[in-house]
Amino acid sequence: MQSLSNWGRWGPDDQRGTLNLVTPEVTRQALGLATEGATVSCARRVTYEAAADSPLPPQHYMLGSGDGYRPGEGPDRQVARDYFGLVFHGHTITHIDSLAHFMWDGRLFNGVPAQRVSTAEGATSHSIDVAHPGIVTRGVLVDAPRLRGVELVERGDGVGLDDVERAEAQCGFRIQQGDVLLLRTGQLGHRDRTGPVDVANVGSAGPLPELLPLVHERGVAVLGSDTGNDVMPSGYERFSNPVHQIGIVGMGLWILDNAWLDDLAAACQARGRWHFLISILPLRLSNATGSPVNPVAIF
Amino acid sequence: MQSLSNWGRWGPDDQRGTLNLVTPEVTRQALGLATEGATVSCARRVTYEAAADSPLPPQHYMLGSGDGYRPGEGPDRQVARDYFGLVFHGHTITHIDSLAHFMWDGRLFNGVPAQRVSTAEGATSHSIDVAHPGIVTRGVLVDAPRLRGVELVERGDGVGLDDVERAEAQCGFRIQQGDVLLLRTGQLGHRDRTGPVDVANVGSAGPLPELLPLVHERGVAVLGSDTGNDVMPSGYERFSNPVHQIGIVGMGLWILDNAWLDDLAAACQARGRWHFLISILPLRLSNATGSPVNPVAIF
Amino acid sequence: MQSLSNWGRWGPDDQRGTLNLVTPEVTRQALGLATEGATVSCARRVTYEAAADSPLPPQHYMLGSGDGYRPGEGPDRQVARDYFGLVFHGHTITHIDSLAHFMWDGRLFNGVPAQRVSTAEGATSHSIDVAHPGIVTRGVLVDAPRLRGVELVERGDGVGLDDVERAEAQCGFRIQQGDVLLLRTGQLGHRDRTGPVDVANVGSAGPLPELLPLVHERGVAVLGSDTGNDVMPSGYERFSNPVHQIGIVGMGLWILDNAWLDDLAAACQARGRWHFLISILPLRLSNATGSPVNPVAIF
Amino acid sequence: MQSLSNWGRWGPDDQRGTLNLVTPEVTRQALGLATEGATVSCARRVTYEAAADSPLPPQHYMLGSGDGYRPGEGPDRQVARDYFGLVFHGHTITHIDSLAHFMWDGRLFNGVPAQRVSTAEGATSHSIDVAHPGIVTRGVLVDAPRLRGVELVERGDGVGLDDVERAEAQCGFRIQQGDVLLLRTGQLGHRDRTGPVDVANVGSAGPLPELLPLVHERGVAVLGSDTGNDVMPSGYERFSNPVHQIGIVGMGLWILDNAWLDDLAAACQARGRWHFLISILPLRLSNATGSPVNPVAIF
Repeated sequence: MQSLSNWGRWGPDDQRGTLNLVTPEVTRQALGLATEGATVSCARRVTYEAAADSPLPPQHYMLGSGDGYRPGEGPDRQVARDYFGLVFHGHTITHIDSLAHFMWDGRLFNGVPAQRVSTAEGATSHSIDVAHPGIVTRGVLVDAPRLRGVELVERGDGVGLDDVERAEAQCGFRIQQGDVLLLRTGQLGHRDRTGPVDVANVGSAGPLPELLPLVHERGVAVLGSDTGNDVMPSGYERFSNPVHQIGIVGMGLWILDNAWLDDLAAACQARGRWHFLISILPLRLSNATGSPVNPVAIF
Repeated sequence: MQSLSNWGRWGPDDQRGTLNLVTPEVTRQALGLATEGATVSCARRVTYEAAADSPLPPQHYMLGSGDGYRPGEGPDRQVARDYFGLVFHGHTITHIDSLAHFMWDGRLFNGVPAQRVSTAEGATSHSIDVAHPGIVTRGVLVDAPRLRGVELVERGDGVGLDDVERAEAQCGFRIQQGDVLLLRTGQLGHRDRTGPVDVANVGSAGPLPELLPLVHERGVAVLGSDTGNDVMPSGYERFSNPVHQIGIVGMGLWILDNAWLDDLAAACQARGRWHFLISILPLRLSNATGSPVNPVAIF
Repeated sequence: MQSLSNWGRWGPDDQRGTLNLVTPEVTRQALGLATEGATVSCARRVTYEAAADSPLPPQHYMLGSGDGYRPGEGPDRQVARDYFGLVFHGHTITHIDSLAHFMWDGRLFNGVPAQRVSTAEGATSHSIDVAHPGIVTRGVLVDAPRLRGVELVERGDGVGLDDVERAEAQCGFRIQQGDVLLLRTGQLGHRDRTGPVDVANVGSAGPLPELLPLVHERGVAVLGSDTGNDVMPSGYERFSNPVHQIGIVGMGLWILDNAWLDDLAAACQARGRWHFLISILPLRLSNATGSPVNPVAIF
Repeated sequence: MQSLSNWGRWGPDDQRGTLNLVTPEVTRQALGLATEGATVSCARRVTYEAAADSPLPPQHYMLGSGDGYRPGEGPDRQVARDYFGLVFHGHTITHIDSLAHFMWDGRLFNGVPAQRVSTAEGATSHSIDVAHPGIVTRGVLVDAPRLRGVELVERGDGVGLDDVERAEAQCGFRIQQGDVLLLRTGQLGHRDRTGPVDVANVGSAGPLPELLPLVHERGVAVLGSDTGNDVMPSGYERFSNPVHQIGIVGMGLWILDNAWLDDLAAACQARGRWHFLISILPLRLSNATGSPVNPVAIF
C-alpha cells in the first residue's frame, strides 16, 4: 500500500490511475503491431443461467419479439427489443473494474473518502466513465499452462514471477509501460467445459501479489486474467483480495476480470507471437464501479 | 427490399450481413489511419433519469458501497458493486442493433422466420454475439450542420445524398467497402443541452432512405448517426422506419444508434480530416437484439 | 375443456371467472367463521437465492441503507429504500394466477384471443387487477399427509378424490360454493428443510385433474396447494399442466401456487377445525398474469 | 422522539412496534363490523409510466405471451409469465413501510443500530416479514375534504387534530387501540385525473405531526393516507419527514403510504359509516423495508 502507491502521482484530482500510462505515443506504437487485421474476442459469452458462481445471473427479457407476427398483419409491430440487467462483478462476466470498486481504510485511490461511492448515488468519484476514451494499447499474454507444460493452473495456485520470467524469456516480449498484461490459467475455459463451481469452497487461481512490484515498476496499465484476479484463499490475514486491494486502491491499477483467453492463446500460439494490439472500450456508464466489456485483440 | 437485398449473398446461414464487408484487409488498411494515437469516444454518457425520450430509464443499484465503512472496522467489507439494467433501444443510449432487431413480413434478414426471435428465448438467431470479434475498420464522418453552415439538422429533416456528396467533395474521403458511415445532425448534443423531447410528437432527424442504394453500392458495413437513425415521421405509409426495415432486414446492414458525434466532429475539424480508425466492440450477449457500445475513433 | 367449461357463464366480457362465485353473501358467511381473531400466513418467505427450482431468483437491491449514517451528520440521509424484482410464476414464490396465465388453442378463458396477452403490453385482458377487491371467503384445508398417515405426498403422486372424501368425512366440512380449496402435500415445507430440487427431473406432487369435476360442481373459487398445482409429469400427452390448462382456460378457475400450508395445518389440527376465513389480496398490477400474495387464514 | 417513544415497551427484541396493539381481541371485534360482505380496494392501480413523481417506474416484462401461438402448433408454449420490478417507496405505489424504512441518529426503532439495514444485505432487522400474519383490524376514515366541505386538502396543507375531532363528532367512531387510521386528502385521486406532479417543487399534503400524540395515546396501529404521509415542506428544520421519523423510529408506528381512498370514501358515504374491517397483508419479503400492498376494507 505504501511502497507501490501512486497516490498523488498524477495530481490530486486524478481518477484514471494507471490509464495515464497509456499515452498517445504508447497507443501509436501498439497500433503498429496490428499487421494482419485479424481480431480475437477476449470476452466470455454472457449467458443467463443461475449457478453457484453466478448467484445473481444476468437478466434478459423481451419487450417485443418475432412472436408478434401474424400473416397478413401490418409490419409495424415487427420490432424486437430486450431488457438486460446484470451484476458484472463476480466470477462469470468479462468486465473491467473502475477504481471505485475497492476501498481500503475508508479511502479510494488517491485518498478520496470511500463515502464518495454511496448507496444512493453510486460512484460519484472514480466512475468507469473516466475511461470513456477507451484503452487502446499493447497487450501481452502470459500463457501459464503452456509455459509450464500443464493443462491448467489449479485453483489455489497463482500465476507469479516465474511464469512472467519464462514468458519474457521464451515469447519475444518484455513487459513495458502501458501494457495490458494478460495472465492465462485456463480456468475459465475449464469452467465452461465442466460446469459451475462454488468459488467460496473450491477457491480460485489468479495472479499472485508478488507480481505487483513488477507491474508497478514496468508501468502496466491493465492487469487481466481468466479468473477473478486474486488467488483464493489469499493466504493473507488482512487482505482478502490483495491484488485488487493494493492494485486498485494503492496503485490505481485497472483490472480486467474473467477475460476469455483460450481463443487468444490459440491465436498467439498459431503465430508464435504473444503481443498484439488490444482495445478495451468500457461502456460510458455514470457513477459505476466498472463495466462489462468485450476486449478485442488485433493482430 | 428487393433491389438492395443481400439475402443469400454470404450463404444461407449467414447472420453477420454487412459485417462480412469488413475483411482483414479492410481492417488492416484502416489501422494505417491511426497515426497519432489519439482516441475519441462516440458514446453518450449513460444516465439514469426517466424522461419522455427515456420512459424506461437505465437502472443502477448498489450491492455494496463506501457507505459501509466504519473507522476501526476490518477492511473486507469495503467493496462496491452495482447492478445495471437497461433497455438500450430507444433515443438516448448509444447502441448497435443486431440483425434480430427488425423483421419484415415475418422474416429476419436472410429469410429466417421471425419466430426465431421469441419472447421466451430472445434472439436464437441473428444475436449480437455474432459480432463478438468486434468491428475494427475505417470510419468517415459526414458532419451535415458544418457542411450546410447551420447549427442543426432539424427534426423531421434528413441527412441525404446532397450532404454525402458535399462531404466527399470537401472532406478528402470517398465512402468505400467496410466503412462505418457516421452522419451527424447535431441533435443528440442539442438534446443534452436543452432537455428531453417527446420524439413521438416532435419527430426526429436522421438518415434519409435515399442513402440506402449508395450504402449498398459502396459496401458500407455500419450506418450510424447521432439520432435513432430514421427521420420521423418517415413519410412512408408502409414503413415506419425505412432505414431500419430495409437496412436491417433486406440488406443485413448494421446500424449504430444515438452515437455521440460532437466530440468527434470537433476532433475532425481540428485536424481537417474526417476519416479515421474506429472500433465498435459489442458486448458478447447471448440471444440479444443489440448491445450498448462505446465506439472509439482513433486518429 | 368442454364439459367443465364456464365460457359465457358470467357474460361475454367476464374476466373474473370463478371469483364470481364469491358473492357478498359467501363473504358474509365466511366472516362468521373467524371467532378468535387469530391469523396465520399461508405465504412462503421470499428469499433471494438462485437454485434449480428458482433459476430467476427475486432481486433485492438497496437504494439507501443504514450504512450511510455517520456520527454527527444530519439525519436526512437516514432512509432505507429497496428495489424488488421477481418472476413469481415457478416453484418457490406464493402467488395467484390471473386468468391470463394460460391459453389453449389460441384462446384465453371466455374465448378471448391469446394475443390480448402480448409481449409488448402484457395482459391487456384478464389481468390480475380484475381481482382488486380481494378474495375474502371460506378456506378449507385437505391435509393429505395427515389423512393418509404419511409424512408427504411424494413427487409424481397427486392429491385426489380419495383425499377429499376422507377430509369431508373426518374434518367437519363439505366443500361449497366460493371456497378456497387448499390441498397440502407437505412438499413445500420439505423442500425448505432439505434444499432445492430440479423439478424437471424429480417431478412434482399436486392436485389431480380428477378433482376438476368436483371443483366445478361444488363451485370452488380458488384452488390452492403447497406445490405448483399440477402433478409432474402429468401423464397426459396433450396437457403438460392439466389443472392449469383446463382450470384456468376452460373453467376460469383461480389457482394459488406454492402456498405455505404447514403452519396452517398445525393451526387446524390444534383446533380440530379445517375450515376458516381466508383473505387473498392480490396486488393491483396492471396487465399482469398474476401476483405474489400473502394469503392469511383467520380463525 | 422522547415523549412518544415506544422503545422497550414490547421488550428489547421487538420489531413489530404498534402491530402489537392489534391483539386477537382487537381483530375479533373488528371482524364483527363486516356485516355485508362487501369489499373495497384501497390500492392505486400499479402502472408503468415514468413521471416526475415516479422517476423509477415499475418494470414489467413478459417471459412468455399469447404472441407465441401459431395455429396448428402444440399447446405447451401457451403460457404467459411476467417479470415485475419496483421501488415502492415514493409517491405513486400503495405500500406499507416496515420499521426499517427510517433511522434517526444512527438508530432504528427500539435502539437497534442503523447498520443492521445494510446495502449488502438489506433489512437484517425490522424487515417487513415480521408482519407476515397480516394486519386484520378496524379501519376508520377521516375524509378531510368532505368534513371541510372542499374538494381537496391542498399541497402544503395538512390533515390535523381539527379534522380528526370533526370526524369523531360527526362520523360515529372514536379512534381506539389497534385502529388503522386513514386520512383522506383527495390528492392521489386528483393526481390521477390531472397528471403527475413534481413533489419536490409543489409539495405534498399529508398528516400533520400534531396528530402523533393522539395516535400514541389512542394506540393507533397503522397510520395511512392518500399521500406520502408527510406534509412537504415539513416546516421543521431537523425533520424532513416528521411523521415518518418520529412515527417509525420513535413510536414503532406502521405507516401506509399512497392509499387509494376515493372508492373507500364513496363506500363510507353511501353507508353513512366510516369504520369497517380492514385487511393489510404485506408480502412476506425477507430483509425488506416495506411491501406494496392491496389493503381491502370490508363492510
